[in-house]
Amino acid sequence: MSQDSKESSLRNLKVVLAYDGSDFSGWQVQPGLETIQGSLASAIGRLTGEKVLPQGSGRTDAGVHAIAQVATFATGSSVPVENWQKALNDILPAAIRVLDVKEVPTVFHARKSSRKKTYRYRMYRGAVCPPFLARYVWHFPYPLDEAAMAEAAKLVVGEHDFTSFAAADEEKRVPETAASPEMNETLIMGQSSQTMVASVSAVRTIYSSVWAREGDEFSYTVSGSGFLHHMVRNLVGTFLLVGKGTLEVQDIGKILEARNRSAAGATAPACGLYLVSVEY
Amino acid sequence: MSQDSKESSLRNLKVVLAYDGSDFSGWQVQPGLETIQGSLASAIGRLTGEKVLPQGSGRTDAGVHAIAQVATFATGSSVPVENWQKALNDILPAAIRVLDVKEVPTVFHARKSSRKKTYRYRMYRGAVCPPFLARYVWHFPYPLDEAAMAEAAKLVVGEHDFTSFAAADEEKRVPETAASPEMNETLIMGQSSQTMVASVSAVRTIYSSVWAREGDEFSYTVSGSGFLHHMVRNLVGTFLLVGKGTLEVQDIGKILEARNRSAAGATAPACGLYLVSVEY
Repeated sequence: MSQDSKESSLRNLKVVLAYDGSDFSGWQVQPGLETIQGSLASAIGRLTGEKVLPQGSGRTDAGVHAIAQVATFATGSSVPVENWQKALNDILPAAIRVLDVKEVPTVFHARKSSRKKTYRYRMYRGAVCPPFLARYVWHFPYPLDEAAMAEAAKLVVGEHDFTSFAAADEEKRVPETAASPEMNETLIMGQSSQTMVASVSAVRTIYSSVWAREGDEFSYTVSGSGFLHHMVRNLVGTFLLVGKGTLEVQDIGKILEARNRSAAGATAPACGLYLVSVEY
Repeated sequence: MSQDSKESSLRNLKVVLAYDGSDFSGWQVQPGLETIQGSLASAIGRLTGEKVLPQGSGRTDAGVHAIAQVATFATGSSVPVENWQKALNDILPAAIRVLDVKEVPTVFHARKSSRKKTYRYRMYRGAVCPPFLARYVWHFPYPLDEAAMAEAAKLVVGEHDFTSFAAADEEKRVPETAASPEMNETLIMGQSSQTMVASVSAVRTIYSSVWAREGDEFSYTVSGSGFLHHMVRNLVGTFLLVGKGTLEVQDIGKILEARNRSAAGATAPACGLYLVSVEY
């Protein structure tokens, strides 16, 4: 069997996953730590005997949840595609559930092919947070001008450079997700010290950005072409400053223009954040 | 100050608590383990400097949750009663929340004064259990005759000897809760080997016993004068046998009559059980 025919016998599988991220060290596999990617890789390994590393649509940080994360990987396994969901769920911990498994064309890639992602951030505004929600919301019972926060959120809709809302670490150089496959490949070579550092644009397009009240919950839902590391949590932390009156609604525009992480608010806690969906 | 006046300066406080029992070794304090009673005692200690052991309306086992558990304890602290809730919640882990604190007459006792308790058991019937529910329901996706289970549940309403549904361990001798304070004190001396063993009646009155479907959840709600150790989980395990067709609806009467633990079904998992309310 030639190398070519061997490769063509691999199928590309697309897995949709929900997870409670509370007890995991995030998506990305890390030695000695429980991660979503590591758990999924290990379950695939037990099922097929293959050593594969499924590629997610983007990383989620420690404590961040997913309603529908997407991952792709190649397999030579003969297990019928309709058997994969149950087989993986029988192996995976209850905190990670496979919602769907489909065979997709080889060119399909969970991250590179993604066109739109939606995140939600859940804030609990009641005085006492029910213990059954403690892992799933950010409890913030203090006064906030919620209408001002909703106004501020509208100002990030459109195409902007989100440098001010990106994590002030090296993660910025690696896109969490691509606005488009083309854009993702447009690397700009920086001149950082001895080594050439690959840097990418912090320009992203936000399609919708909405705060909504439902009972004691005040939640932020944002859809965009892609998101920088910590971007949603930094947006929430900045809208919070508007809600507290520390910032004016119109300051959001100035913060975007500043292209400086220190201009924005603090990163909101991970436990309130959900990757809701990825569209292709 | 005489012993009498010192005692009369103690206030009796009634605390209502909700908790996610998943990460606790049950209600009852145990050396080296995280328990609800231990966490509450430690929070009271930090607040007042006093060493007290709050008395619950009944113990809940490891993994069992509470919507409204009740506990009482005596305190000489001068902290105003209206400040206790926030003060305790600031100290307690987020998985335990104080919902209410009231001063009550000295004779009031969370367990001995209780007249009625309600428990709920949540079963999840969908094929894939959402990861955010995994800690809070028993996932049972297999076929069940739910109508038969609902019929069977009706047969335990009324006054019965629930020996067949009590844990087959020494716990049976210690009532989880009293049907009435008087009954609780009616100890029958058994002749077990060398020692005299205090035994209590396994007769309890069930006021309502109902299974209900809501979406993918099938839940059992039961109210009674009191419950023996493992009684609700053993009832659920037995109704499950009816749902599977292993038992007939009418077998419930025979199991009650048998007064033998081995006549009933297995104990359902702790994670689905909630102490909903305690009435006085």
